[in-house]
Amino acid sequence: MDDIAMHGGDIYSYMEMNGAKPLDYSANINPLGLPDNVKKALAQSIESYSAYPDTNCRKLKEAVSAYEKFEADCILFGNGAADIIYRICYALRPKTALLTAPTFSEYGQALENTGCKIEYFGLSPEYGFTVGTGILEQVSGKDIVFICNPNNPTGNLADRSLIYKLAEKCRKENCILVIDECFMDFVAEKKSYSFIEYLEDFDNVIIVKAFTKIFAMAGLRLGYCLCSNKEILLKIEKAGQPWSVSTPAQVAGIAAIGDKDYLIRTARIIDEERGYLSKNLSSFGFTVFESHTNFILFKAEQTDLYDRLYKKGVLIRKCANFKGLDDTYYRIAVRCREDNEKLINAISEVIKNG
Amino acid sequence: MDDIAMHGGDIYSYMEMNGAKPLDYSANINPLGLPDNVKKALAQSIESYSAYPDTNCRKLKEAVSAYEKFEADCILFGNGAADIIYRICYALRPKTALLTAPTFSEYGQALENTGCKIEYFGLSPEYGFTVGTGILEQVSGKDIVFICNPNNPTGNLADRSLIYKLAEKCRKENCILVIDECFMDFVAEKKSYSFIEYLEDFDNVIIVKAFTKIFAMAGLRLGYCLCSNKEILLKIEKAGQPWSVSTPAQVAGIAAIGDKDYLIRTARIIDEERGYLSKNLSSFGFTVFESHTNFILFKAEQTDLYDRLYKKGVLIRKCANFKGLDDTYYRIAVRCREDNEKLINAISEVIKNG
Repeated sequence: MDDIAMHGGDIYSYMEMNGAKPLDYSANINPLGLPDNVKKALAQSIESYSAYPDTNCRKLKEAVSAYEKFEADCILFGNGAADIIYRICYALRPKTALLTAPTFSEYGQALENTGCKIEYFGLSPEYGFTVGTGILEQVSGKDIVFICNPNNPTGNLADRSLIYKLAEKCRKENCILVIDECFMDFVAEKKSYSFIEYLEDFDNVIIVKAFTKIFAMAGLRLGYCLCSNKEILLKIEKAGQPWSVSTPAQVAGIAAIGDKDYLIRTARIIDEERGYLSKNLSSFGFTVFESHTNFILFKAEQTDLYDRLYKKGVLIRKCANFKGLDDTYYRIAVRCREDNEKLINAISEVIKNG
Repeated sequence: MDDIAMHGGDIYSYMEMNGAKPLDYSANINPLGLPDNVKKALAQSIESYSAYPDTNCRKLKEAVSAYEKFEADCILFGNGAADIIYRICYALRPKTALLTAPTFSEYGQALENTGCKIEYFGLSPEYGFTVGTGILEQVSGKDIVFICNPNNPTGNLADRSLIYKLAEKCRKENCILVIDECFMDFVAEKKSYSFIEYLEDFDNVIIVKAFTKIFAMAGLRLGYCLCSNKEILLKIEKAGQPWSVSTPAQVAGIAAIGDKDYLIRTARIIDEERGYLSKNLSSFGFTVFESHTNFILFKAEQTDLYDRLYKKGVLIRKCANFKGLDDTYYRIAVRCREDNEKLINAISEVIKNG
């Protein structure tokens, strides 16, 4: 079960072991599933997969430029956000980096591949894992800082005024700031938290985003980054192959952005179901951390919760391999009510038979 | 038109400029198009794209293992062969490399990203761009050697006994040999040319292959490498993100391998049409180089052939940016008769009008 622990979403190991599909709470994917017009666009585009994909993602770039209200030439696409993260590290070859702990593990993986020295800014459960102003003091001497906002696996949001100060501090110190906003589109108040509207004022800031989670297309692999510094963007582009974004990913991305209603329905269901899950998890005596996005981190007494739910066909994310957490921490996705009731019932049974 | 020159297959720049689709002879894709069962499998799998792809490509690995008659654990998949090439370079960080000239340009691009010094072994048009034994003398002091077999853009095959000696020489010199066999499945006599049957005897040899060309799925991005050295394979895997192979690529790959008849039909059409095209190109007075795969390199007096065919809606590959060639060299794909007649007519008109 090593693979399951490394990342969420590995339903394939479960299926290989158990022959059936699990109820997957380990991957943070929009519970509404693929938008209908994405399915339709994919079904209609199959004939076009013979040709090489458009290396410039022209149509997709236009669509995302309108969606993000950001200059098309300042957007670069990749084979999921993870591809962009690895390219950033290979392109910029930072020698020293600052990461929060806990946070998404692929920043560290990608940085280690380039032999980068990593320093951590510890986030404390007592403060709900909030990023504090102390982070500003650790920027000096770093080549790159990664901030995940909302943070994975905590669901916590960093204050935009602090991010602004961090961007300024990084600029002063000749340091790149990467803000991973892959889960920002799930945030109801995202207008007050996303850094995109300040992005053109900073030539040292890169925002990473993905279609993977918000449009439930993790299997299609589509991510992008935004940066007002075209020199940096070109370096990131050159750090990998020209054909990294497949034709189905481009087709799906364009269709997804066309479905405005989907995001409104998403915000509604996430808000409602996060409340339902948080309340129920708290009622079991777990410490539930406040989330603003589509997953919830909680701390339990039990260190065997993952294994016992696994036996019931439910996958959750055990968080022991996140630096700064231990085996009493778990992360679950926010799904639709029917599934959430199943999850809560399963946890309830596990606890009763404690 | 800079982008068009860099690689073949950029039909999107053409469409942006001209509003219509070109007759594309610049990308080397199987003229039979996507196999029918691949289309069917894709249409039926759309619902599954919400979940993350299987990072281990379990089912695909089994299918390719049976197809290649090579141990499943010794196969690694990537987002097209190009992804594998970049990962190899990032994983192994060679300091000195040996490439043939001309050859596929992405080896050089990927090597330059890691600051590698590149030496070239020149292939001569007088000898039909055949790789000679002289290459053995240039291995000493190199960390990596790339051989493309059949070679892109020449279509030429290297003798397997020479490749064997090269693999031995590389082993002795502590050097990795990468054999790119992306176009090998188009070769009628591939059993006598592919190095796969000797691969388990060498812990320093990596074979790179792709579904892209042979199964006409360039837009889906699916490549792989085979290597009996699992330590090297693990390094290559760790050099990038875990989710590089999308679900549609995995689904399509499994379905494609299931269609045995497709490869037989492919061999037949390529053989026949390559003969038709070669004969006609020769009749125009071009020097046509002997090809064993699905594209043909030729040398013309005219340096404006690309531009004049472009105006007629036909894209060919101008080869001036291949090291070792110049602006009198062109590469065309082998397509079906109907298209090939259009191409030959278009060239004929261009030549007549002087």
